[in-house]
Amino acid sequence: MSRTITSDSRLRVGVDVGGTKVAVLVAKNGQELAQAVNPTRLNSPDDTLTGIAETIQQAVSQTGGEMADVEAIGIGIPGRVDPWQGTVQLAVNLKLRDLAVGPMLVDRLGVPCFLENDVRMAALGLRFHPDFAHADNLAYLSIGTGIAAGILLKGELYRGLNGMAGEIGHIEVIQNGPRCVCGAAGCLEAVAAGPAIENQMAEVLARSSGKPVPAPHLSTGQIFQMAADGDPCASELVAQVGQHLGWAVKLLVLSYDIEWVVFGGGVSRATAFLDTILRNIAHRRQESDLAREMLKPEMIQLLPPNFDAPLWGGIALAEKGLVREEK
Amino acid sequence: MSRTITSDSRLRVGVDVGGTKVAVLVAKNGQELAQAVNPTRLNSPDDTLTGIAETIQQAVSQTGGEMADVEAIGIGIPGRVDPWQGTVQLAVNLKLRDLAVGPMLVDRLGVPCFLENDVRMAALGLRFHPDFAHADNLAYLSIGTGIAAGILLKGELYRGLNGMAGEIGHIEVIQNGPRCVCGAAGCLEAVAAGPAIENQMAEVLARSSGKPVPAPHLSTGQIFQMAADGDPCASELVAQVGQHLGWAVKLLVLSYDIEWVVFGGGVSRATAFLDTILRNIAHRRQESDLAREMLKPEMIQLLPPNFDAPLWGGIALAEKGLVREEK
Repeated sequence: MSRTITSDSRLRVGVDVGGTKVAVLVAKNGQELAQAVNPTRLNSPDDTLTGIAETIQQAVSQTGGEMADVEAIGIGIPGRVDPWQGTVQLAVNLKLRDLAVGPMLVDRLGVPCFLENDVRMAALGLRFHPDFAHADNLAYLSIGTGIAAGILLKGELYRGLNGMAGEIGHIEVIQNGPRCVCGAAGCLEAVAAGPAIENQMAEVLARSSGKPVPAPHLSTGQIFQMAADGDPCASELVAQVGQHLGWAVKLLVLSYDIEWVVFGGGVSRATAFLDTILRNIAHRRQESDLAREMLKPEMIQLLPPNFDAPLWGGIALAEKGLVREEK
Repeated sequence: MSRTITSDSRLRVGVDVGGTKVAVLVAKNGQELAQAVNPTRLNSPDDTLTGIAETIQQAVSQTGGEMADVEAIGIGIPGRVDPWQGTVQLAVNLKLRDLAVGPMLVDRLGVPCFLENDVRMAALGLRFHPDFAHADNLAYLSIGTGIAAGILLKGELYRGLNGMAGEIGHIEVIQNGPRCVCGAAGCLEAVAAGPAIENQMAEVLARSSGKPVPAPHLSTGQIFQMAADGDPCASELVAQVGQHLGWAVKLLVLSYDIEWVVFGGGVSRATAFLDTILRNIAHRRQESDLAREMLKPEMIQLLPPNFDAPLWGGIALAEKGLVREEK
């Protein structure tokens, strides 16, 4: 079931649309030809689409080719996407709601465009990295502003009936825990995503100082660094985050029985991030036979540095999108 | 992707090996021809296999046919199974460990035998019930002595790499909760399976009487009945169980993005069992937009009464086992 790179010579394009920048990669036969990056334009949905289309055209023209040479484009969006219709249902950071972004870009560019949620697209992209080229069954768990997993089963992206499979950031890890943006209490995202970590640190500092809770002034990166430097408050908070993310690993492995859990997203680049999780996994293995059997430290990985999983996921989507199954 | 019943006229056999009885169903073209039930023989592994083989032969002879008329046999085992090797890794209630039950039964019966965990087999069996004949994406969640889910994705049983997919009974629903048989603390199974419910009731009664915790003397069925009758202690405990099982529904739906969650197992037959879960789901829908969108009351079902999902799962396994994919 390993991916076969087709040998035709047309261009494929991967696009990562973020809240601050639009990044584009053009590849041929799995080899990078060009990249382009521009700030995301947010004046209006039309403006946003124009910015995306122009960045794509810019990257393609850098290869010396033109849009007619492009076979397909895979586009990752930070939000809710219907990949079958090519619509963005909700992307708060892009100020988009219920917009047929895929068809609209097809109109502008004259090339098939496939849309996907950015985390799921990044999961697809992992297959382009040599470490995961034969990883047919994995979860890519993104820890950033939010938490979500992209799931590959038997070498294919598993989307579920509504494209929502892997939304594990909204499963409760703590009973009656902090309120999540989704409205529920104690969701994984409400205790282990970047803003949640920063808010909890602010609360800890307020408690120790006896003053009201200030706006967070320490970033997740700073908090992990403080923990690595021995600060007791930061260490305790980071250990808790490790416990929650260890729980997430266990949830993914027991639910899907997969081979790899790969962490990515902004928070995953913090100092000693992986160690924090591995310490918790070691504890879980110590107390439980089942954990010892199912949770192997070597199955837990960080997204390789300098590897742009979303952009390569866009290339994979452009490739796979052409033969995708119908819902 | 709906199941097609092949029209050949050979017999297929489903076997449900429980801790107390071995049940066998013989079917042709999806129609029941005969059943046989005997007590499970537990004097030795050899004795257990002899009992299974004899019950199969007995049921087949009731149809007027013989073993040579049987195309294949699907066998469900309450425990850890390697379906690809046909081995039972661990089945505590059958006193079996690391035994090649499949190949050994093939030797005795001269017919292909496919082994599966009983809960996963029951999930396969649901497809034979008219309510679920077209349910390609579902979780069958068994609440009995233990808790586990059998998962159908795109019409196929999803087993995962080690046949362990769906072992959600061992995901922690409570931090630092009661110790589970697996060694971890606060697993779903440790608070919402039958023995866990009975132990918690015994603890509640001990607290209210001021006496030491007695051995459980109330069954899960009695506890749910007491709750339905208005007993405050039982009501509180049952509401907690409903919250935990509502969490399990949410976990299954957000992980797999499936259409149905079907409850089965001994505990699911308790009075007002489904109502208990639906009350919790209603609460989750009230507090969260995401829950309102993803968790629909109508997707949560009880295993239809008088429908033997494991035995029909055995028939499905006999049918599908012949064309199963390799690991």
